[in-house]
Amino acid sequence: MSSPFETTRQRFKLPEGVVYLDGNSLGPTPRSASARLRQLVEDEWGQLLIRAWNQAGWMEQPRHVGDRIGRLIGAAAGSVAVGDTLSIKIYQALDAALGLQPDRRVVLSDRGNFPGDLYMAEGLLRSRGSDYRLKLVEPEDVGGAIDSSVAALMLTQVDYRSGRLHDMQGLTQLAHRFDVPVIWDLAHSAGAMPIDLAGCDADFAAGCTYKYLNGGPGSPAFIYVAPRLQDAVQPALAGWLGHAQPFDFDLDYRPAPGVERMRVGTPPVLAMSVLDAALGVWDGVNMEDVRRESIELSEMFIREVESHCPMLTLASPRDPAQRGSQVSFHFEHSYAVIQALIHRHQVIGDFRAPDIMRFAFCPLYLSREAVLRGAQAIALVLRDSEWDDPKFAIRADVT
Amino acid sequence: MSSPFETTRQRFKLPEGVVYLDGNSLGPTPRSASARLRQLVEDEWGQLLIRAWNQAGWMEQPRHVGDRIGRLIGAAAGSVAVGDTLSIKIYQALDAALGLQPDRRVVLSDRGNFPGDLYMAEGLLRSRGSDYRLKLVEPEDVGGAIDSSVAALMLTQVDYRSGRLHDMQGLTQLAHRFDVPVIWDLAHSAGAMPIDLAGCDADFAAGCTYKYLNGGPGSPAFIYVAPRLQDAVQPALAGWLGHAQPFDFDLDYRPAPGVERMRVGTPPVLAMSVLDAALGVWDGVNMEDVRRESIELSEMFIREVESHCPMLTLASPRDPAQRGSQVSFHFEHSYAVIQALIHRHQVIGDFRAPDIMRFAFCPLYLSREAVLRGAQAIALVLRDSEWDDPKFAIRADVT
Repeated sequence: MSSPFETTRQRFKLPEGVVYLDGNSLGPTPRSASARLRQLVEDEWGQLLIRAWNQAGWMEQPRHVGDRIGRLIGAAAGSVAVGDTLSIKIYQALDAALGLQPDRRVVLSDRGNFPGDLYMAEGLLRSRGSDYRLKLVEPEDVGGAIDSSVAALMLTQVDYRSGRLHDMQGLTQLAHRFDVPVIWDLAHSAGAMPIDLAGCDADFAAGCTYKYLNGGPGSPAFIYVAPRLQDAVQPALAGWLGHAQPFDFDLDYRPAPGVERMRVGTPPVLAMSVLDAALGVWDGVNMEDVRRESIELSEMFIREVESHCPMLTLASPRDPAQRGSQVSFHFEHSYAVIQALIHRHQVIGDFRAPDIMRFAFCPLYLSREAVLRGAQAIALVLRDSEWDDPKFAIRADVT
Repeated sequence: MSSPFETTRQRFKLPEGVVYLDGNSLGPTPRSASARLRQLVEDEWGQLLIRAWNQAGWMEQPRHVGDRIGRLIGAAAGSVAVGDTLSIKIYQALDAALGLQPDRRVVLSDRGNFPGDLYMAEGLLRSRGSDYRLKLVEPEDVGGAIDSSVAALMLTQVDYRSGRLHDMQGLTQLAHRFDVPVIWDLAHSAGAMPIDLAGCDADFAAGCTYKYLNGGPGSPAFIYVAPRLQDAVQPALAGWLGHAQPFDFDLDYRPAPGVERMRVGTPPVLAMSVLDAALGVWDGVNMEDVRRESIELSEMFIREVESHCPMLTLASPRDPAQRGSQVSFHFEHSYAVIQALIHRHQVIGDFRAPDIMRFAFCPLYLSREAVLRGAQAIALVLRDSEWDDPKFAIRADVT
């Protein structure tokens, strides 16, 4: 039986012999990226120069690319804007949420959230004054901690270390019972599984595009604002290009209608153009198929690893319905194992402090054979103690 | 006599026949951009994948590229960080400045400042509470308005419409007499003229890189923090990559030492790499030579335009020492004139509401002959009423 992903695999360029299990850190290169960049630099920037803002549609990119992402996350057209980094988009979303509940002072999140999101919240709350408080609970205790003291609930849907999946629908419903707006960070879920922001009645969401959306290193982030909230939001990052009439150069800020007010400065045209091209790999792809195959790949991987590597402990939920598209293991020497996998076997996974090795499964470019080879390489590294080479022990910041 | 800029002109790719007087809106394409992008996409992202963060130096880019910019603006190594947009960098700088004067409530700026900077200030002050106030005076009244009620002075060195130049040294000194930290927006001065941030004892500065630094559409911005202040600053935009140990994934934010704490999210590697390549056009260039030639070009342009176009009124200071590297004129039909110049003569300038046509002079790629041809084209457009074509009257947002 031919896989629906044989076509999509042709849309990526991966180095010969590499098994890439790190698409949740940086997605690989879509073949369309080079041609789009050539067109951008030579024909648009090179020939049209400043006129390209209109004639090549640069000014419309944040919305146009936003709508393309919107189709992958269940967001209506006109509810996603692209730009900046995920940190900035989280800040904007949290600030907007706090504006909806001006008399409450608690931001609720969990200890599994990505630390960067928590830092941005800390910074925002400090600016807003000393009576604000960031309350962190264990991921499984979030539901019980929601009450009417909470100004905003801020969660990452899929845990960056364990892959644990929060129940977006259930937690959003529960939060709404207490009039708590919810911000969903989709960094590890957008492009990895079906998401239905509109169906879940989510308030805000944000995500990055260099993981499962393959936009390239440092490609811009996105923000979602539910249509019912867009015109109620008063942006703290009151950017020039979020103004209703930026080219009138008024001295006073008037927010643009809709999600456009969440734009800030000049759009990053180069990166946005590559991202736009990268989104083409989703043409004809059904997200339910992606999810089914990603579960197939992860289950196969867990089976294979567990049967040969008893010293590893599964760090991800065993039930695939409770996981995103990644599988993690605890092991004391995870960092060195990841290094040995890369250097000895061209199998690329990721280390996350303190002791986690994590592997992502992206059916768009990853075959079952490749995943099997990845699992077998882990078994070899552990069996032959290949990781026990002093040069693999020295930790660098990013692998 | 051969110009010192004959070499630099070879470093740019401009369309045949175009006279480009709009480098203060979007600088043209450095020839090195294409090759750098090819290398980035094919060798780094394509082959190294996630490993490129270390092996290709991606993680160090914000500082490395910052240091290259620093050399053009009189900033010591380690005092400039690159990333985000100018709006975000202004927000960070203003927030940091307010943290230095926690008991004062007035932010002083002028009505000639770029509106986007004022919007960001408005948004920040609104977050911080109702007792903060943005006070705007006329540009020539700034000095007189500085007193010890002022928490921060926020100015753009060169006015985006008129090209009027503020006295950085004098105003900074005056402000410091009242312990007022100053934020300088260098959007229209970095790369246009000598700047000596360290010599002026400037506190903060920010700028964009797609104008006189030719980094490409939407290329990242930069922020300068005086070394004496770097470790006193508590960032509101407390980003993951501004953390002292981002890869420890602590739940609590601890700012990195130095200017690194002004980094926010994942660096925009594609755009940063092109910017890095673009900064190569400055190799061997003396900024005093740039200034001398830019004044030569602007004076020639004013002479030529004024002698043939009496209906235009100079909107820029007549004294070149009071101007940046641009010349602007008032004219009721400026928008249509700019359109006619582009469509009939391939001379590209810029319109700014309500009635300004503006032209920038960048000796790195602009010869005296080209500037003369630009001035003559304006005379032709006005003499033959070429602008009086209905199709040139319909205003689009960006030209």
